[in-house]
Amino acid sequence: MILRMDRLQTELPMPKSPSPNDAAALQELLGGKYGEMSTLMNYTFQSFNMRGRIQIRPFYDLIANIATEEYGHIELVSYAINMLLTGTAKRDPDPVTAPLEGAKDARNSYHYLASGQAALPMDSMGNWWNGSYVTCTGNLKTDLLFNFNLECQARANKIRAYETVKDPCARAMVGYLLVRGGVHIVAYAKALEKLTGVDVGKLLPIPDVSNKKFPEARVHEEKGLHRKLYQFSPTDYATANKIWNGPHPEDGQELMFEHLPKDFGVPVPDLVAEPQINAPLDPDTLADLLKKMK
Amino acid sequence: MILRMDRLQTELPMPKSPSPNDAAALQELLGGKYGEMSTLMNYTFQSFNMRGRIQIRPFYDLIANIATEEYGHIELVSYAINMLLTGTAKRDPDPVTAPLEGAKDARNSYHYLASGQAALPMDSMGNWWNGSYVTCTGNLKTDLLFNFNLECQARANKIRAYETVKDPCARAMVGYLLVRGGVHIVAYAKALEKLTGVDVGKLLPIPDVSNKKFPEARVHEEKGLHRKLYQFSPTDYATANKIWNGPHPEDGQELMFEHLPKDFGVPVPDLVAEPQINAPLDPDTLADLLKKMK
Amino acid sequence: MILRMDRLQTELPMPKSPSPNDAAALQELLGGKYGEMSTLMNYTFQSFNMRGRIQIRPFYDLIANIATEEYGHIELVSYAINMLLTGTAKRDPDPVTAPLEGAKDARNSYHYLASGQAALPMDSMGNWWNGSYVTCTGNLKTDLLFNFNLECQARANKIRAYETVKDPCARAMVGYLLVRGGVHIVAYAKALEKLTGVDVGKLLPIPDVSNKKFPEARVHEEKGLHRKLYQFSPTDYATANKIWNGPHPEDGQELMFEHLPKDFGVPVPDLVAEPQINAPLDPDTLADLLKKMK
Amino acid sequence: MILRMDRLQTELPMPKSPSPNDAAALQELLGGKYGEMSTLMNYTFQSFNMRGRIQIRPFYDLIANIATEEYGHIELVSYAINMLLTGTAKRDPDPVTAPLEGAKDARNSYHYLASGQAALPMDSMGNWWNGSYVTCTGNLKTDLLFNFNLECQARANKIRAYETVKDPCARAMVGYLLVRGGVHIVAYAKALEKLTGVDVGKLLPIPDVSNKKFPEARVHEEKGLHRKLYQFSPTDYATANKIWNGPHPEDGQELMFEHLPKDFGVPVPDLVAEPQINAPLDPDTLADLLKKMK
Amino acid sequence: MILRMDRLQTELPMPKSPSPNDAAALQELLGGKYGEMSTLMNYTFQSFNMRGRIQIRPFYDLIANIATEEYGHIELVSYAINMLLTGTAKRDPDPVTAPLEGAKDARNSYHYLASGQAALPMDSMGNWWNGSYVTCTGNLKTDLLFNFNLECQARANKIRAYETVKDPCARAMVGYLLVRGGVHIVAYAKALEKLTGVDVGKLLPIPDVSNKKFPEARVHEEKGLHRKLYQFSPTDYATANKIWNGPHPEDGQELMFEHLPKDFGVPVPDLVAEPQINAPLDPDTLADLLKKMK
Amino acid sequence: MILRMDRLQTELPMPKSPSPNDAAALQELLGGKYGEMSTLMNYTFQSFNMRGRIQIRPFYDLIANIATEEYGHIELVSYAINMLLTGTAKRDPDPVTAPLEGAKDARNSYHYLASGQAALPMDSMGNWWNGSYVTCTGNLKTDLLFNFNLECQARANKIRAYETVKDPCARAMVGYLLVRGGVHIVAYAKALEKLTGVDVGKLLPIPDVSNKKFPEARVHEEKGLHRKLYQFSPTDYATANKIWNGPHPEDGQELMFEHLPKDFGVPVPDLVAEPQINAPLDPDTLADLLKKMK
Repeated sequence: MILRMDRLQTELPMPKSPSPNDAAALQELLGGKYGEMSTLMNYTFQSFNMRGRIQIRPFYDLIANIATEEYGHIELVSYAINMLLTGTAKRDPDPVTAPLEGAKDARNSYHYLASGQAALPMDSMGNWWNGSYVTCTGNLKTDLLFNFNLECQARANKIRAYETVKDPCARAMVGYLLVRGGVHIVAYAKALEKLTGVDVGKLLPIPDVSNKKFPEARVHEEKGLHRKLYQFSPTDYATANKIWNGPHPEDGQELMFEHLPKDFGVPVPDLVAEPQINAPLDPDTLADLLKKMK
Repeated sequence: MILRMDRLQTELPMPKSPSPNDAAALQELLGGKYGEMSTLMNYTFQSFNMRGRIQIRPFYDLIANIATEEYGHIELVSYAINMLLTGTAKRDPDPVTAPLEGAKDARNSYHYLASGQAALPMDSMGNWWNGSYVTCTGNLKTDLLFNFNLECQARANKIRAYETVKDPCARAMVGYLLVRGGVHIVAYAKALEKLTGVDVGKLLPIPDVSNKKFPEARVHEEKGLHRKLYQFSPTDYATANKIWNGPHPEDGQELMFEHLPKDFGVPVPDLVAEPQINAPLDPDTLADLLKKMK
Repeated sequence: MILRMDRLQTELPMPKSPSPNDAAALQELLGGKYGEMSTLMNYTFQSFNMRGRIQIRPFYDLIANIATEEYGHIELVSYAINMLLTGTAKRDPDPVTAPLEGAKDARNSYHYLASGQAALPMDSMGNWWNGSYVTCTGNLKTDLLFNFNLECQARANKIRAYETVKDPCARAMVGYLLVRGGVHIVAYAKALEKLTGVDVGKLLPIPDVSNKKFPEARVHEEKGLHRKLYQFSPTDYATANKIWNGPHPEDGQELMFEHLPKDFGVPVPDLVAEPQINAPLDPDTLADLLKKMK
Repeated sequence: MILRMDRLQTELPMPKSPSPNDAAALQELLGGKYGEMSTLMNYTFQSFNMRGRIQIRPFYDLIANIATEEYGHIELVSYAINMLLTGTAKRDPDPVTAPLEGAKDARNSYHYLASGQAALPMDSMGNWWNGSYVTCTGNLKTDLLFNFNLECQARANKIRAYETVKDPCARAMVGYLLVRGGVHIVAYAKALEKLTGVDVGKLLPIPDVSNKKFPEARVHEEKGLHRKLYQFSPTDYATANKIWNGPHPEDGQELMFEHLPKDFGVPVPDLVAEPQINAPLDPDTLADLLKKMK
Repeated sequence: MILRMDRLQTELPMPKSPSPNDAAALQELLGGKYGEMSTLMNYTFQSFNMRGRIQIRPFYDLIANIATEEYGHIELVSYAINMLLTGTAKRDPDPVTAPLEGAKDARNSYHYLASGQAALPMDSMGNWWNGSYVTCTGNLKTDLLFNFNLECQARANKIRAYETVKDPCARAMVGYLLVRGGVHIVAYAKALEKLTGVDVGKLLPIPDVSNKKFPEARVHEEKGLHRKLYQFSPTDYATANKIWNGPHPEDGQELMFEHLPKDFGVPVPDLVAEPQINAPLDPDTLADLLKKMK
Repeated sequence: MILRMDRLQTELPMPKSPSPNDAAALQELLGGKYGEMSTLMNYTFQSFNMRGRIQIRPFYDLIANIATEEYGHIELVSYAINMLLTGTAKRDPDPVTAPLEGAKDARNSYHYLASGQAALPMDSMGNWWNGSYVTCTGNLKTDLLFNFNLECQARANKIRAYETVKDPCARAMVGYLLVRGGVHIVAYAKALEKLTGVDVGKLLPIPDVSNKKFPEARVHEEKGLHRKLYQFSPTDYATANKIWNGPHPEDGQELMFEHLPKDFGVPVPDLVAEPQINAPLDPDTLADLLKKMK
């Protein structure tokens, strides 16, 4: 079970130019086959399902910590999408003026017709995330390879998304995820190495492009964020450090396992009201409610 | 973002008679249209996406707390499924003996062919959970009604599952969820009441069968578990008590909002190894690994 | 737009041995790729969408009449399924006795967990009917060929279903549909003939098995039901007889176009309550309601 | 079973500016999760499946009448889409001139590649309508709540579609459906009230925006159309008036149950030929056919 | 089993104006319900599954040869898509410059985010090809009718695609496929004729537009390509000529069955690298690899 | 493009005990996420789409050869399924006797209702194969890792299928595929090694169970079949031997690249007629046809 904190793992700057089609593209990182819903759900189910975990506790703890971090990633991508959609329609509560007129040319119409100018668990083509994206054979070696591959595919995804959207809000999000996803890649490489002795880390980077090419990733790596695995639990999942140790395969610096700092991240951004879609409510209802709630 | 604890929200007794088809039926409560993946994901996305939340904080906090609790529910259903699948195949590591022979007649073949005798995000017919089950219009009133209906449909689901499976492990899980899902029904009823003045709670129970008919639910209600909403956060989401208060619509007792107790729940059960599917590893590999890991 | 009558197109005898798996198999005729939902929706959309219909009115009228009849076919298959599911669980309102225990071994668990022992728009494997089964190019010739093929594939489906289920309720339904579907096959063959001069009817029967092999079909053909196309409208769609005329391709008898007789069909069967699933309500609630409704 | 009439429930003005992307957006109201295919199919299956209906006849009759009206709604949305697509391609029968060139930038390519510039059972993103959108537990209370929620979600959908498309053809359609969908919302609220005594109608409107804001809805409400439930049957389903009675929850005026007037609606519009897609036929074939058909 | 040759069945000119939306439209011919994946897979499974083939060898051989040719068709459509996508992004390996910026407005985002500016088994709306498009009843007559219809629907698809895209690369592809698909239509017509005596060929063309209207098809027909069925095997499937013989139904010329000429087709085009998506590799990695591979 | 030969890659013994549920389980190896349709289509599209292939020809040739072999694998799995379904229904052409009665309890009803007791592109739960299972980023390193993982997941699948079905027909098929799939695993490991220098082969076997445990695999490995990569082309794709060389990672023996031997495999088995499903035709029609075809 979990506790939740009303914080984002990294700060997202206000978008410079909100854009429905930027938001549509970023959905690939949320609900795509290789998006954050997939990493979250793969590791979550693998952790629920792991058999014989008493004997192989460090692997269990590693996967559980990463699964937990991924929740913050679906959150982060969702907020980036939501911020990019904020203000993209006329803020006119009179439907007759067709405040959503622009929506009919947007690539993703669900953002306006089916959600409150906000994220849904779908990909960049509006195909829904689904459970067939989850693999969980129960065999540790097979699942670790799957995870290693999943993270590398997800990294390819992120690089392409970065190349597609320019807005600083989106790029801050992608840059951060490149770093943290990079931690997961290394984590699964290390886990495979513990199991087999093969220096899987030498395969990196996959795709063959360094995170250094991405300024919004570099800024975090310069602070060492790519070398830290966090214990995302008050007291549990502590033995992941039996796997997460030794040198980072790309820069040789020492890996560190740390309890998640108390002040990690930033408060979640507020998303302003969009009266034309009655989100959160029609202005009159809202006023009434506020009166009642005093 | 979240922290995770290696605990289940309630204790699950060891199954009396592990059964593939019991496990298959319970998948409806996990990955069905009205299963726990749906409640988790609906409220999670609604909380990520809520606009103007500063003004309507109690509603935001209510939904966020419930979303957080739901994570524990997908965990609970998954463990019940996993426990019911444990031991349902011959524990013979020699494939020639066809240790999975029984799997070919099991209703859900994925449990053996695609997972390690364990849960996946699908329903009782093996249809994958998908994002089309998520509704999030951004209009508070519309979303609250959706949630109220979702919880009632989910309750119908649980009652039917209870009537289908007899094993105490399954029924302990369903009984607990009837109570906690009941809390969510009341929570959304109260939220609608705050908004409109209508005593929505008087519609309950939906379906028109009392939780009192279910001994495994009654045991929790006698301890008052149906009247408590928990703050599932170290410090955030604290104003939900502006909605969660007053008398319980079914028994008139006072509702309580409490911080989740430190010792809530129980340690997660261990799932024993199943060598015939090499979960977690082939016995020889496992022995090698354990030697190395010392 | 439509008017509805509370009647079934043919009488269904009470099942001799209600059976979940018989019901599951019959779903193929309802929600399968070649089931009645498909014939209904293909012709319905083709009729909504037909361009230039003023000039080719008889074709429009033909398709519209058939589309209308198909509604009665989804109804008929649904009732057969519902009747075969009636009484297949213990009628015990106490959930503790697990009245749905048998459901866990039924091939289609939705019949118990997600519906009231009743039909849903899915096929025999529990895959949902979906709109990709609809073809509607707007080109009359292409659409007529599609329809001709669709009806022949649907006939293959029906024959296989007949060979699978023995219960007289199911066979009365299939026998009737073989005859009426046969009318549609001939109708589309005639339409193609009007357009091209090719005697398409000579291709029949497809599959190459005569309706005469099926006693429950024969009984209707002996009354001439295979030669009648009905005008399913108080006043519209009357020119279909410009296509539906001449000899029947299989027995050479004259085709007839008739207004649907006033007394066509029979009253819909009542479906008895199933208290274990609270359908229609829990007995106590029902009693209360009946008191109030007096 | 049904009879069909070649009439639309309300008149649709000729579009001012036919537009592929307007048509694409409107598909949400046809084949979306909360579109008219969903209301049609939910109530249709609920009526086929209702158990114990003899005792609770008014509820059965209510749902059956509404189900029947919904058929007219899929028809109405389809015609609006078809009219908005008419004339959106060059009317040149010579393929070499690429008369469909504009289609490659249209949001919904199926309208040109897979249909005759016409509607299909899909939503605004081209995802097919599917049977998972149907809920039918068999428990009256649970199904009525589902229906009430479905209609409110569908209303949110319609409001958003209205705000997206400006063309008078589309808005006439949406305005009419807001009124008639409003009748269904009230009908299910009344049904829940009969069952529980709760004044569910006081929750309205959901979303919290009045129909009065929509001139194309207001025009019908001024004529009282929001207070009439129609008996969509020559002789059956007559007891719905035991539920549909008393004051309208929003304006307090008396509700009326009436037999559908003989002259209800208007003749269906003709859809002109589109020769570039050979709809209904290539001009030469058509000429030949007309000669033969004389 | 098969052997593969690195050749395309016909030459594709370099696109004049590469275009993401042209490529998106052509996906309908690849992964649509009536695209080449469907023809390939239908005939392939029908050939694997045909029972009693010893007695009806010519039908088996006919279907097997056509199935084999279809593989070349998915290849041809894929190359056309790939060529139309080549050069549609800035060739800048620096992600910071957002070389894929245009992708966010492209109708099919997968072409950039999920593939290397290249084809995937999906349709023009990004819906994935799936196995429900395959029909294979095992009854020869029923399957032949299905195939005949499938090819005619596929022809409608091709005509619409031709009308949508103007680029000579696309049209060379479509023109060729109209001719070869035309051969398959005739082949299934002849097969039905052998079985029933009905001159099915007289129904052609379906849709009712001659291939002669398409210059890129005409050029092949003038060389007689529409009259040749090829034996796509070194030694097997030779008896198809018992079906493929007699006059062509549209021009009366003699049909010919020939062994596939040794020099059939042309070498596959090279697809140049796209460094911005690291396809095939980042330039530095590629240089390293080439050094190592010497 | 391809040529086809009427041969299976290995001999399949007649089943000892034909079984619908064995056949149902094997569908996972055909149309599952990790079945042979997936390996076939992934490599096929990767080969169509590979950019810059002139420079990295050996990788192109490797993937193309493997893709080509995979066609033989979907064929092999299909035949095993078909043989296991042969004779599983009463061979009575009279439908009245319900020859398919057993089908209603079979796990996969499509085998009887929708196919001729034969394979379809679906998995063991009757979920259709779909294009979302294809990954093709265009980046060689990323795609090779994907392929390596895909083959390992597919191997896990095969092992589980082997453990589920005992029939010698099924096991001969699985044993052979374990060996040939093993070749593909090594091939992608070698390719990654050429690219990165990492000895990826040392990770094997994945899952951690040797092929030696499977007698039906061992028999082929003893003949060296696990060390041979075949050139599946008369003249093309010849440079794969620049990657496929050196010692086998598991037994150290030398790898060999060979042209596919002329006499490779065996003639495809005949599948006997099943008159009850009119496959290939009703006996009378068949007799007529044979007379005509003389």
